[in-house]
Amino acid sequence: MGHTEARLPVIQFAGAAGVLDLGWGHPDPALLPVDGWAAATAATLRTAGWTALTYGYATGPGPLLEWLAVHIGSLDGRAPDPAELFVTAGTSQGIDMVCALLTRPGDVVLVDAPTYHLALRILANRDVELRAAPMDGAGIDPAATVELIARLQRTGRRAPMLYTVPTFNNPSGASVPPERRRDLVTALAGTTTIVEDDTYRELAYDGPAPPSLWSAADGGVVRLGSFSKTVGPGLRLGYLTAEASFVRRLATRGYVDSGGCLNHTTAMVLTEFGTSGGYARHVAGLREAYRERRDALADGLRAHAPELMFDVPAGGWFLWLRAPEGLVNGHGVALLAGECFYVDGGGRDRLRASFSMYGVDDLREAARRLGLAIKDMHADQGLGHPE
Amino acid sequence: MGHTEARLPVIQFAGAAGVLDLGWGHPDPALLPVDGWAAATAATLRTAGWTALTYGYATGPGPLLEWLAVHIGSLDGRAPDPAELFVTAGTSQGIDMVCALLTRPGDVVLVDAPTYHLALRILANRDVELRAAPMDGAGIDPAATVELIARLQRTGRRAPMLYTVPTFNNPSGASVPPERRRDLVTALAGTTTIVEDDTYRELAYDGPAPPSLWSAADGGVVRLGSFSKTVGPGLRLGYLTAEASFVRRLATRGYVDSGGCLNHTTAMVLTEFGTSGGYARHVAGLREAYRERRDALADGLRAHAPELMFDVPAGGWFLWLRAPEGLVNGHGVALLAGECFYVDGGGRDRLRASFSMYGVDDLREAARRLGLAIKDMHADQGLGHPE
Repeated sequence: MGHTEARLPVIQFAGAAGVLDLGWGHPDPALLPVDGWAAATAATLRTAGWTALTYGYATGPGPLLEWLAVHIGSLDGRAPDPAELFVTAGTSQGIDMVCALLTRPGDVVLVDAPTYHLALRILANRDVELRAAPMDGAGIDPAATVELIARLQRTGRRAPMLYTVPTFNNPSGASVPPERRRDLVTALAGTTTIVEDDTYRELAYDGPAPPSLWSAADGGVVRLGSFSKTVGPGLRLGYLTAEASFVRRLATRGYVDSGGCLNHTTAMVLTEFGTSGGYARHVAGLREAYRERRDALADGLRAHAPELMFDVPAGGWFLWLRAPEGLVNGHGVALLAGECFYVDGGGRDRLRASFSMYGVDDLREAARRLGLAIKDMHADQGLGHPE
Repeated sequence: MGHTEARLPVIQFAGAAGVLDLGWGHPDPALLPVDGWAAATAATLRTAGWTALTYGYATGPGPLLEWLAVHIGSLDGRAPDPAELFVTAGTSQGIDMVCALLTRPGDVVLVDAPTYHLALRILANRDVELRAAPMDGAGIDPAATVELIARLQRTGRRAPMLYTVPTFNNPSGASVPPERRRDLVTALAGTTTIVEDDTYRELAYDGPAPPSLWSAADGGVVRLGSFSKTVGPGLRLGYLTAEASFVRRLATRGYVDSGGCLNHTTAMVLTEFGTSGGYARHVAGLREAYRERRDALADGLRAHAPELMFDVPAGGWFLWLRAPEGLVNGHGVALLAGECFYVDGGGRDRLRASFSMYGVDDLREAARRLGLAIKDMHADQGLGHPE
């Protein structure tokens, strides 16, 4: 029975024939490092041998933590100590585990708006109540958030966690300015723990990403990093940085102690990919490739669908389109509706367009089809063509 | 920075110099399939390419589910349909996830006694109350367990889950007889969900393992299988079989939907290892090797430490010794104290000896040292040598 004979699906993506589906935040197959990962695995098993296959050290293989500390130092406001690092089985698993540690059923978890829609489902599965944090043009409003938490506490509610994607936000692409970051961590220190989803940091196209909330804070922030976008989502590997005392609490959870590191063999291969320089070369190539894709989609939309307003994001995978209400999928192109990124009913005039999964020609064609869809919508509404 | 220069630990095992430590339930490094896993990874990336690195199908790669269905059918009372299969990130993760789905904080979870000690910590982390199920010589007592659950319900408590290791139990090595299995699943059907930890099924040394509770039941059982003992614990890969409706509930959890399959890349390599026949050859070799180790330790203990009573297990990794109270670690040999396998204070006269991590010569030497430790204990107690 070979891979090609499967009658059941192998992967999550299921496209419709002839449709350019910009709804999926998946990597371009052509950009996945198949050969590099094969070489790193071979080298790992040759040099690390059996230690790559047995129970791993709880927080991650030492050499990975040491490499990560230096690597993060090159990307962020400061380098973590290895004792502030914990290897996760991907950001989704990290959100679930951190939420389990911080919250009890019935607690309020604050989230930014818009925010990563599937994180909302991960959190909701923990039986917490999700509420949008107060926002202004720069991001979460620190003073209003402190006031909201105080109001909740006066009614006997706890709000022990705030989830946010402040850098190259999914879906909006926006980044919170450095000054607002400092204000936010200062205002919330001692009030709630900020869980910072930092998945897109390394996919920065116009210069380095702003320093993380974690690096700007003196405690009180758990930052989740990912190898899903930089290497491959199938690996289920990421990391977090947090206070050493928080890392110790994670490391002594029963399921970490029972299984060893949450994804040891894969973490050992990532160690080799990282320390050999293969990772840095690969990610440099990704930045080039995804920057071209961003620009191709942005240029195409300006040319073919000028009604769709958007800011060009400085990183990440998404254009966040302000679209005429009623624009639906069709004409061989698909987007993700904006409502799913809000807990409070916002986003009805928004669509998320991912430029990660297709090459520049397909993205230009998708923009052309979107333009046709808008023309048809106007025609249906009796408005005539916009020209 | 190479693997050999690490200042932080790479793996979980940390032995003391000169000590034969039978306390760890870890595989023998010499029995880990380093070359086989390297070959399977290379073949997977060559044939499956990018599909091995992107988001996986929620319940696991189709070809793995199809192979597993046939493979389980060859080991158990019946083969699951692929829709009854879900790929986990190891049994520890499976216990945690299933407990999250079945229980609420404050619920009672029943466990067998003795049982896998780290499962107790995984469950306790979910804020449930652990209680020992009533046991008799054959295993969990079905009628007494039904009565216990009814008593709990009369006081307003829920007992939605029973965790048990009925086959080559960790730590006892015992297996529940087939008739008791049928009685148990019949008695508990509709009353509580049985979570069957089936980690050691394939390490059967004296003929096939008894059919699982899952295969004997008409629903109401979630059986957790593992590749930690048969391939390598660092993989963090396992599976479960359950009713298709339960599998669908798992597959739609937020963190599964967000990440795809819980460990897709590794699952793709396991697919290759399984379908190529490499897995079956490797496990056949393991059965031979671990049978020899079991016999070497059992023979050594009979010769050197006849005071230690035990039944010879027909599978798994452990001898469960009835030992004189006060026998402590020392003399260059270490065991795991029995108390940790009970929630209710039992096991003070028990020690778990794992024969998985050492070769036969080391196991014979460990038995000799245990004999010396017992002689010294008797001398310290003024009882003289037992001869």
